[in-house]
Amino acid sequence: MPPSAPRQMTLVAFLQAQNCSNYPASWRHPDAAADFLSAAYYQRIARTLEAGTFQLAFFDDRLAMPSSYNHTYAQTVRYGIRAVKLDAATVLTTMGCVTERLGLGATYSTTYFEPFHVARVFGTLDALFAGRAAWNVVTSLNDSEAANFGREEHLAHDQRYDRAEEFMEIVTGHWRSWDADAIAPDKVRGTFADPDKVHRLDYTGTYLRSRGPFTIPPSAQRRPVIIQAGQSGRGRTFAARWAELIFVIHPSRDAATRGYNDYKAAIAASGRDPNHVKIAPAIYVVPGTTRAEAEAKFAVIDGLAKPEDALELLSEVLNFDFGAKALDEPLTPADLDSMTGLRAIIDRVVEMSGKPFPTPSDFVRCSGRATVREFPTLVGTPGEIVDEMERWLEAPACDGFVIAATHVPGAYEDFVRLVVPELQRRGLTRPDYRGATLRENLGLPLPV
Amino acid sequence: MPPSAPRQMTLVAFLQAQNCSNYPASWRHPDAAADFLSAAYYQRIARTLEAGTFQLAFFDDRLAMPSSYNHTYAQTVRYGIRAVKLDAATVLTTMGCVTERLGLGATYSTTYFEPFHVARVFGTLDALFAGRAAWNVVTSLNDSEAANFGREEHLAHDQRYDRAEEFMEIVTGHWRSWDADAIAPDKVRGTFADPDKVHRLDYTGTYLRSRGPFTIPPSAQRRPVIIQAGQSGRGRTFAARWAELIFVIHPSRDAATRGYNDYKAAIAASGRDPNHVKIAPAIYVVPGTTRAEAEAKFAVIDGLAKPEDALELLSEVLNFDFGAKALDEPLTPADLDSMTGLRAIIDRVVEMSGKPFPTPSDFVRCSGRATVREFPTLVGTPGEIVDEMERWLEAPACDGFVIAATHVPGAYEDFVRLVVPELQRRGLTRPDYRGATLRENLGLPLPV
Repeated sequence: MPPSAPRQMTLVAFLQAQNCSNYPASWRHPDAAADFLSAAYYQRIARTLEAGTFQLAFFDDRLAMPSSYNHTYAQTVRYGIRAVKLDAATVLTTMGCVTERLGLGATYSTTYFEPFHVARVFGTLDALFAGRAAWNVVTSLNDSEAANFGREEHLAHDQRYDRAEEFMEIVTGHWRSWDADAIAPDKVRGTFADPDKVHRLDYTGTYLRSRGPFTIPPSAQRRPVIIQAGQSGRGRTFAARWAELIFVIHPSRDAATRGYNDYKAAIAASGRDPNHVKIAPAIYVVPGTTRAEAEAKFAVIDGLAKPEDALELLSEVLNFDFGAKALDEPLTPADLDSMTGLRAIIDRVVEMSGKPFPTPSDFVRCSGRATVREFPTLVGTPGEIVDEMERWLEAPACDGFVIAATHVPGAYEDFVRLVVPELQRRGLTRPDYRGATLRENLGLPLPV
Repeated sequence: MPPSAPRQMTLVAFLQAQNCSNYPASWRHPDAAADFLSAAYYQRIARTLEAGTFQLAFFDDRLAMPSSYNHTYAQTVRYGIRAVKLDAATVLTTMGCVTERLGLGATYSTTYFEPFHVARVFGTLDALFAGRAAWNVVTSLNDSEAANFGREEHLAHDQRYDRAEEFMEIVTGHWRSWDADAIAPDKVRGTFADPDKVHRLDYTGTYLRSRGPFTIPPSAQRRPVIIQAGQSGRGRTFAARWAELIFVIHPSRDAATRGYNDYKAAIAASGRDPNHVKIAPAIYVVPGTTRAEAEAKFAVIDGLAKPEDALELLSEVLNFDFGAKALDEPLTPADLDSMTGLRAIIDRVVEMSGKPFPTPSDFVRCSGRATVREFPTLVGTPGEIVDEMERWLEAPACDGFVIAATHVPGAYEDFVRLVVPELQRRGLTRPDYRGATLRENLGLPLPV
């Protein structure tokens, strides 16, 4: 690439293996497909993303149906607010089967899964699809998930991360345990591989232990790419140590620029090369051939949300029943103290509302939760949208974007049909894949 | 079907997501494919099985590399004795993507996995592939598996089954929790499903708890088919209560006939209809266009095994280091008492060798472990093989067969090319699938 060529951006699709996209109201869109229980639904998305040379299709996950609002799941089911959730790794596998280069990422929890199992599932994906797998590491923080896994309540924040550190040592340790050239089958002699090139982990921590040897040799990219999304103090330290791709949420380009610089500094401080960790904020994109057309499309999308959607998801993510309050009743200090989970939302609502004790309505309005305003929304012509994406990239506020879907599969079909050609015309993305593995396509080195 | 038509048999393929088939030496066969780390390898098998109207492709599993012989995995790796093991559910998903009717079964352990996760993985498979999934329920009994999951040692036999009972209550309970007609999306009103038709499990046992609600509605066959392979006292009781398809291993047709009658009686005694539980013994099949050709093929296959293969796998399955003994040194009473795991093997070796204290060599010779004599081997022309299969079916000694592979993919390609046409000619199997779901194709009713 000549030195004057623009920096290129990473494109990631932010998917959900459920009846709606990140935007819970998305299933109500007139063009939303209803066959979300079929492989065909996810395979159609996969083909579209590969046509647009997305580096990665990535599935978020929660291990429970939202059930905290009014202490029931009735509203979740009635309004379809993430009511159906499939196993993300299984869904991802169906997408790998109809693509050749698209990266395949899914979320598995360090809190409720076993490290040997996680190492094996993602090791299998990475083997079967020749170096295209990625694992999004999450520590679970939700009471409904804890109840499904028979725990009284989720672990305290710091303990979750202590355990997660051990989890990572085990998973990445297992992934390192076969030398790349260990297997050399000789049918006549009957020997398969060199025992000196396969190593046993023998890890013992405070929370977790695992012996090995692991049962899967390394893929063409050696091991799956590690994704993380923590933005809190401990989560950021964790990501700075382990992540190769970091998903962030920022309300604006300025906030994203500050966050980007801070994160890259934290990565350098942890002794890693900041260029070897990609940062991608979530955005919604609503393109039209004219600005008026895009705004009309956005109005339809924005109008799909119900206040119930937000109250349900806020209750879930903060482990607090907003149904116990009137919509305009200020929360008490005790209410705010009792909230757990993603507490960063509280700060945002207090700051944006200007109230130390916001009401449920303030939470709906300022959090953006369960609306299409949860992430920055780029609405306009392809030229206008790419102008803004380019400004983010040049700030720099990011290394690329996590494109969330206003509805499925339409949002990705529109993006690939309208926006991707403009990105390619300006040299901001490539018309083809750089290499065969996800690591090559993200511009990440092989792990040491 | 006219009353004079013969009973039809179930065909199941006994697969391993690893570098060899059930027969550890299989990878040394001149025709064995070497791309066992690719989706293509498993998808080729899947297409072959569907061409032969197999009802089910089923993956066995162990969650560890054999490591008990001489307290090391060196020999396992050197000789390729089940050294590589992929996650079976992931591999199975790739096979579902290239087939339309083939049933998809995999083993997940009740000892090391979480019931909510197992319910979701198999619920997802069953949804994505419209009622083709099956779960093989195992309780794990191997020290190497325990070490990988950070346990000091595996649970005692009875505790494993007590926990497994609770596990089944949770998994099947979650699978029952959505009424089949719960989802009725109305995009205009914004309502998705009827909360009165989605139920929370709220299960609390001695070992396990899970709340719900589950996040996946029922498939076209309502829920995955339950497979079990327990032949011991408690394992048989467990299978009689839960299983819909039971895998058995018998050394002969006579033994299989006795076992079949006993099992069907146990099923009836547990209050279930014995016709709603299919029993299938494992066999190897080596067909040739002439008897001499088949015998020559068998000689090649039989000659692939090494004594090391058997000692490694016997050490693993009995949690006993046969490497600590000379080959012709009789075991002591203390040695025999210290063995855990599949203790039924000890009885077989004592009986066949006629020695109360057999030697390691006796174990290799009489157990058949890791040789092609571990299961009955049908060698001959298609006519001779189908004669014997028909005798088993008519005894009755079974409702069908679990066909293990002497090598992959050749064993299934030979079976479908040579044996299946003869089975179909005699009306013992169908040239097409009876229905769309696994349950229909096995002749099983919808669960109540």
